[in-house]
Amino acid sequence: MGHVYRLVISCPDQVGIVASVAQFISEKGGSIVEANHHTDTSNGWFFMRHEILKGSMNCDLAEFEAGFAELATQFDMQWFISDSESPKKIALFASKESHCLADLLHRWHENELPGEVVCVVANHDDLRSMVEWYQVPFHHVPVTPDSKPQAFAKTEEIVAQYQADVIVLARYMQILPPQMCRDYAGQVINIHHSFLPSFVGAKPYHQASERGVKLIGATCHYVTEVLDAGPIIEQDVIRISHSHTIDDMKRLGRDVEKTVLARGLRYHLEDRVLIHGNKTVVFDA
Amino acid sequence: MGHVYRLVISCPDQVGIVASVAQFISEKGGSIVEANHHTDTSNGWFFMRHEILKGSMNCDLAEFEAGFAELATQFDMQWFISDSESPKKIALFASKESHCLADLLHRWHENELPGEVVCVVANHDDLRSMVEWYQVPFHHVPVTPDSKPQAFAKTEEIVAQYQADVIVLARYMQILPPQMCRDYAGQVINIHHSFLPSFVGAKPYHQASERGVKLIGATCHYVTEVLDAGPIIEQDVIRISHSHTIDDMKRLGRDVEKTVLARGLRYHLEDRVLIHGNKTVVFDA
Amino acid sequence: MGHVYRLVISCPDQVGIVASVAQFISEKGGSIVEANHHTDTSNGWFFMRHEILKGSMNCDLAEFEAGFAELATQFDMQWFISDSESPKKIALFASKESHCLADLLHRWHENELPGEVVCVVANHDDLRSMVEWYQVPFHHVPVTPDSKPQAFAKTEEIVAQYQADVIVLARYMQILPPQMCRDYAGQVINIHHSFLPSFVGAKPYHQASERGVKLIGATCHYVTEVLDAGPIIEQDVIRISHSHTIDDMKRLGRDVEKTVLARGLRYHLEDRVLIHGNKTVVFDA
Amino acid sequence: MGHVYRLVISCPDQVGIVASVAQFISEKGGSIVEANHHTDTSNGWFFMRHEILKGSMNCDLAEFEAGFAELATQFDMQWFISDSESPKKIALFASKESHCLADLLHRWHENELPGEVVCVVANHDDLRSMVEWYQVPFHHVPVTPDSKPQAFAKTEEIVAQYQADVIVLARYMQILPPQMCRDYAGQVINIHHSFLPSFVGAKPYHQASERGVKLIGATCHYVTEVLDAGPIIEQDVIRISHSHTIDDMKRLGRDVEKTVLARGLRYHLEDRVLIHGNKTVVFDA
Repeated sequence: MGHVYRLVISCPDQVGIVASVAQFISEKGGSIVEANHHTDTSNGWFFMRHEILKGSMNCDLAEFEAGFAELATQFDMQWFISDSESPKKIALFASKESHCLADLLHRWHENELPGEVVCVVANHDDLRSMVEWYQVPFHHVPVTPDSKPQAFAKTEEIVAQYQADVIVLARYMQILPPQMCRDYAGQVINIHHSFLPSFVGAKPYHQASERGVKLIGATCHYVTEVLDAGPIIEQDVIRISHSHTIDDMKRLGRDVEKTVLARGLRYHLEDRVLIHGNKTVVFDA
Repeated sequence: MGHVYRLVISCPDQVGIVASVAQFISEKGGSIVEANHHTDTSNGWFFMRHEILKGSMNCDLAEFEAGFAELATQFDMQWFISDSESPKKIALFASKESHCLADLLHRWHENELPGEVVCVVANHDDLRSMVEWYQVPFHHVPVTPDSKPQAFAKTEEIVAQYQADVIVLARYMQILPPQMCRDYAGQVINIHHSFLPSFVGAKPYHQASERGVKLIGATCHYVTEVLDAGPIIEQDVIRISHSHTIDDMKRLGRDVEKTVLARGLRYHLEDRVLIHGNKTVVFDA
Repeated sequence: MGHVYRLVISCPDQVGIVASVAQFISEKGGSIVEANHHTDTSNGWFFMRHEILKGSMNCDLAEFEAGFAELATQFDMQWFISDSESPKKIALFASKESHCLADLLHRWHENELPGEVVCVVANHDDLRSMVEWYQVPFHHVPVTPDSKPQAFAKTEEIVAQYQADVIVLARYMQILPPQMCRDYAGQVINIHHSFLPSFVGAKPYHQASERGVKLIGATCHYVTEVLDAGPIIEQDVIRISHSHTIDDMKRLGRDVEKTVLARGLRYHLEDRVLIHGNKTVVFDA
Repeated sequence: MGHVYRLVISCPDQVGIVASVAQFISEKGGSIVEANHHTDTSNGWFFMRHEILKGSMNCDLAEFEAGFAELATQFDMQWFISDSESPKKIALFASKESHCLADLLHRWHENELPGEVVCVVANHDDLRSMVEWYQVPFHHVPVTPDSKPQAFAKTEEIVAQYQADVIVLARYMQILPPQMCRDYAGQVINIHHSFLPSFVGAKPYHQASERGVKLIGATCHYVTEVLDAGPIIEQDVIRISHSHTIDDMKRLGRDVEKTVLARGLRYHLEDRVLIHGNKTVVFDA
């Protein structure tokens, strides 16, 4: 399939939005490949995403943006248009556990991930060789209780240096400082190894074993200042029984963590996730 | 939520369809509650469904239809508009097994099914009392090898008498005559107790046991002249193991059959299923 | 399949238990149809369940029990043996919502449920006609803030009158008094409409919508004095999206509630659930 | 957990097997960590698997085997005992697609796979660098229509040289010669990218798209002379819709293929799969 523009809009709902937007796209010759709408009737908010074939447009992106701005003001829209030929730059944060990191690197290497992995930052050095096989720069930034402020200053410097658009906590095991959560709001994606809101915080599989649940899960969410409480992008579960030890749960859970994180990240990279309050609208293909 | 019109369209794809349709709806004051598009890039066909709030329209249905016909001709559309206040009339066909029939009757009784059950036709008399408790007319039309033509003539007469819009084979266990399949094309829904195209025909659970599969399923599909080969609306599966006997498979399978049929029928009743060739586009909410 | 005895054992783990039990069964001529073991290595506890073909035994139940008591003492066992020809008696508690009640009554009517429904107790009269169609005695016992003690005294009287072995809260919507929870420990089964421990208490679908989860679930558990915190028997989930309203969640959730409750109850009726502390061992076939 | 012996038995069913086996294990001081039985009542065949803690035994493996042989003869058993400290040697066969190969190598590297990867044989050279990063010998054996006999002679030589116990076709895309299927019966595991028996042979996702199914799947099975018809070990599915192209199906399918193959292989490596006729008994933990 050819490259596309992605036009993403949210605004107060009213009659005529769809017609005006469709009319505008049509005038530019735009061939709509995918379109999704959603009205949240509980708060009167409207969400919309279009994929428009680049080759079909009779104007360039700047001209589109200039023209659309007027219409956007009229409907009080929050909006942006992105280009699938300018994929988002991804900074992966890791620790010692490799399953999520290896999974994302492999997907990227196989051209499955619609983004560009620009660097890995890790607070341990264990995964350096694996990362370097993929020819991705690896930065070892240890985080200790004493060095936390300096470590995160260094970390933010690296992110800025690579102009990363999104930070993925691929089992990073460190809590980001509140200021960093605010600075990168909507740009930091975490994978938590439980079906949130159950089992917030440390050792969720131990918590799950203690409670005797019959399914365990994983949750991909945006990071906010409140631990494990940000907007949820994607979740999934897997069945367990009394016969599974905590080690079995960790093993089974890894498969869920990997796929949930990969799906959630994919949605983000394709601008399919619209955050509103503490919830998300996810326009899955 | 208020009552809605459902505008359902399919046509050759081209630039401007969305804009023209949205413009038309907007001019009539129509507030779009739900909108779905799909372009099948393999054959250049476009599919579209809108839910429009009835109360928001500044014209009646006849006026809408008259105006829209012109636009429809222009884009070579197959289309219709339906009214959620005129729910489809359902004829349920059954045999001796009650699980699908009981499930649908209960959903309808609890106002969960967006349609009206107008009659039950059964080739055995066993389920009469259950059906009559729901105050639904029960017609016992036995089908024997000798009586098949007369039986189906009688059956079609009943369907016509109640002006049924859709026939649901709720484990009916009889093969409809080819002419009836043609006459009611796209209006007869069957539940087959396997994950089609595996295990077509009789005794699918026995076939599944013989093959040693690890999941069993059910398939809701439109009936055509070719047995168990019509367009698929919905499918699902459930896990089994070596420890399950064929009786266990039947028991577990019943739960899948019920939910798959209820979901598939719901999609049909809300005009969410667009048939194209031998495949369906299902615009799930 | 023929009728079976179910021998259910839990005790401290040690070498020789399996051999001694198997030897005892073998001496009585018992043909073992199904056998399950589990050792909880975290606390050294052993769990075991056998299904023994009744017709294969060369002694009656009393003789078996007398002989086995000696062996049981030796290994410090908690144990019992039950007879599938003496199915458990079930009291169903309901309110106004019919989906779980109708589902269980229908399964029982179709001989799918390995137990005997002896009565329904409801705090509203709405479901009387449906229950009476199944020829099950219906007792309307209203519960109001003022009448709670008398209402539950009356309720316990009814349970005693029918000699019910298990109470099923089929969306009963009332909290049982603490003393009743203690008196019927391990004999009261509830269905909670969330994936516990998430969303304890009232209106779990509203809580789920508020948090923006991507899956909703249901949990079948034993009732204890602590609300929604008793040992979990069975759980399942279903996928939702931003497009589902709370009414959609209720509709989708009902299907999960029904199947989770039916599965959990089935396990209990077949003596497949062994409670230990606040967790369960479920020996699923 | 400590290392274990795995005692795996199948034989005609009769009273006393369990007692005799348990008695024998108990006399050797064996602490049973996991035990599974199954009787196939359709053909009177009995299946059994024990995990016995190595450290608990008062005899060595040779002594156990010598003693058990007598008992085995008495009950006409097919049986073996394996040692978790002597893990099976795995030969991975691959082509150009890396997802299954990379997944298994990573699991093995992280000590998740209870076996030892001894070599990779590939009919293309593309994946050499990836395999060599894992320090696994990589053998490029091209297969062309003309060279097939020589290529497979070379391939068998390699398998023999590494004394591989199991061959995994990790999207190998070549059909093994009939003689090789016979020689390695029960030792060659394939992943087929459909929910068998649907869509046997080439391009199953194209076949699935053509038929319009709503779920796609993957099947892990033993290879026999009949293409895609050997005993099934494990299967799973994932939901698709009309909006998914064949490329989307391939992408979604890869995740199912990986996990189904990894699960199936794990069962095989832990001697949890008992083949009987064309079906399997899988004693999942």
